[in-house]
Amino acid sequence: MKTVTIIGLGLIGGSFALGLKRTGLAEKIIGVDTNPEHCQEALALGIVDEIKELKPAVLQSDLVILAIPINAAQVVLPQILDYIPLETYVMDMGSTKAGICAVVKNHPNRKNFVATHPIAGTENSGPKAAFAELFLNKVSIICDAHLSSEKAVNLVRKIYQNLWTNVITMSAEAHDEHIAYVSHLSHITSFALGQTVLEIEKDEKNIFDMAGSGFESTVRLAKSSPAMWTPIFIQNRENLLKAIDTYEKQIQKMREMIENSEAENIYEYLSQVNDIRRILNK
Amino acid sequence: MKTVTIIGLGLIGGSFALGLKRTGLAEKIIGVDTNPEHCQEALALGIVDEIKELKPAVLQSDLVILAIPINAAQVVLPQILDYIPLETYVMDMGSTKAGICAVVKNHPNRKNFVATHPIAGTENSGPKAAFAELFLNKVSIICDAHLSSEKAVNLVRKIYQNLWTNVITMSAEAHDEHIAYVSHLSHITSFALGQTVLEIEKDEKNIFDMAGSGFESTVRLAKSSPAMWTPIFIQNRENLLKAIDTYEKQIQKMREMIENSEAENIYEYLSQVNDIRRILNK
Repeated sequence: MKTVTIIGLGLIGGSFALGLKRTGLAEKIIGVDTNPEHCQEALALGIVDEIKELKPAVLQSDLVILAIPINAAQVVLPQILDYIPLETYVMDMGSTKAGICAVVKNHPNRKNFVATHPIAGTENSGPKAAFAELFLNKVSIICDAHLSSEKAVNLVRKIYQNLWTNVITMSAEAHDEHIAYVSHLSHITSFALGQTVLEIEKDEKNIFDMAGSGFESTVRLAKSSPAMWTPIFIQNRENLLKAIDTYEKQIQKMREMIENSEAENIYEYLSQVNDIRRILNK
Repeated sequence: MKTVTIIGLGLIGGSFALGLKRTGLAEKIIGVDTNPEHCQEALALGIVDEIKELKPAVLQSDLVILAIPINAAQVVLPQILDYIPLETYVMDMGSTKAGICAVVKNHPNRKNFVATHPIAGTENSGPKAAFAELFLNKVSIICDAHLSSEKAVNLVRKIYQNLWTNVITMSAEAHDEHIAYVSHLSHITSFALGQTVLEIEKDEKNIFDMAGSGFESTVRLAKSSPAMWTPIFIQNRENLLKAIDTYEKQIQKMREMIENSEAENIYEYLSQVNDIRRILNK
């Protein structure tokens, strides 16, 4: 590709840009971001070659990448498709997929769009958090691929492949349902744990001196960006509420066993959950 | 010290033995473990120099370290104190402190015992999981230090210092109350999250293909040893139930905001919890 535009120069967009540079897949990368500070940082860090306004950037690009919060992406995507050149493709990287697919469902240029979700990230945000290796050995999901042109899907596949990212495909609805459990729910549990301990700390100073690596690992996602996660929680509300309710039942089950000192049942329960080790290692 | 006995040759005891060897603090380390396989492994890995029965090991030691599940430690500690030589000290390393302090409260040799809890560990267990650096830059808590002889406390302090572990002191009750929030609760949330996703997986195959590093970090503690954690949950029941209830309220608060699509409130909530970043980095 000659020219690629990245909209949103944070952790995800910035890392994708650095990855494209490393693999030599893009000759020139244009950055678009409403935050002037992020634009300056992205230039200074060599993440992008130049900064442009949205429309002129899109008009001269072979590929446009949306790496902004999902609520913003749903506003910008239909606008881009309105004037997108015939052979230019646009992909998003958001954490929910049904919403964005719905807003362009009947757009005449729907086939120029590829809905994707790379399961990659850290708890950090902004251009300074970006690094080329973010997508290495991760999984990316392409949703509703049949609604995109074959050329567009092949291009996106080739890019992910070059970034060493494994691609799987599914419907937008299946994606949102499953991701509620293996990503969105763990953000909820981390935020709730973080807030629980922060509130206790008001009365019990220095409690964090006692926090070890276990707590740190469990609460890590509570550092995540509110701008990114607020719209995700709301958009995937229906699936997420189901996941939270299922989770609540497990918390209640453990609570009850502990309250009644059911040693054997607790042991049995923990042993069963240990099976997560096998599954994560596979 | 000439001779040290380690009772329990798993992750904690094994790592402590390796640390003592590395710092040259112990000339000889005797291992005691009811699991013959662990004894063989500990010998083969150079964690201990010999394996002995409990009593003869204690009788020839300068220091005895209890690194077994807390329910077992509470049975063994009073027995050891019954025949412990005058100048031999015993320390435990369990995750709850009120229980073990209570069982030896009136023992005539109480002063030979130092109650400690190193906030260090991984999700792995057994001698093969042990490594000398486990305690490096971690925090260890000595509880009810005034009930131990000064000589005993100074010895334990010196050892932790040599392992590069920072020591803080507090009462056994305060320890158990605080640790419920910053350690035991995060094990509950991890186990519940693990079980939630394992149950969903029964119907939705391949859901774990979509799990990223965020899920893995949040669920890591669900790999922890049931033998170690069952008695911890039960012994710290009272504090832990309070912590679970506080946590439940946070989950419910998030659930409600999500159900009502309260974007501003969610954003505000997540931003507040981001403060955990400042606290963990301090």
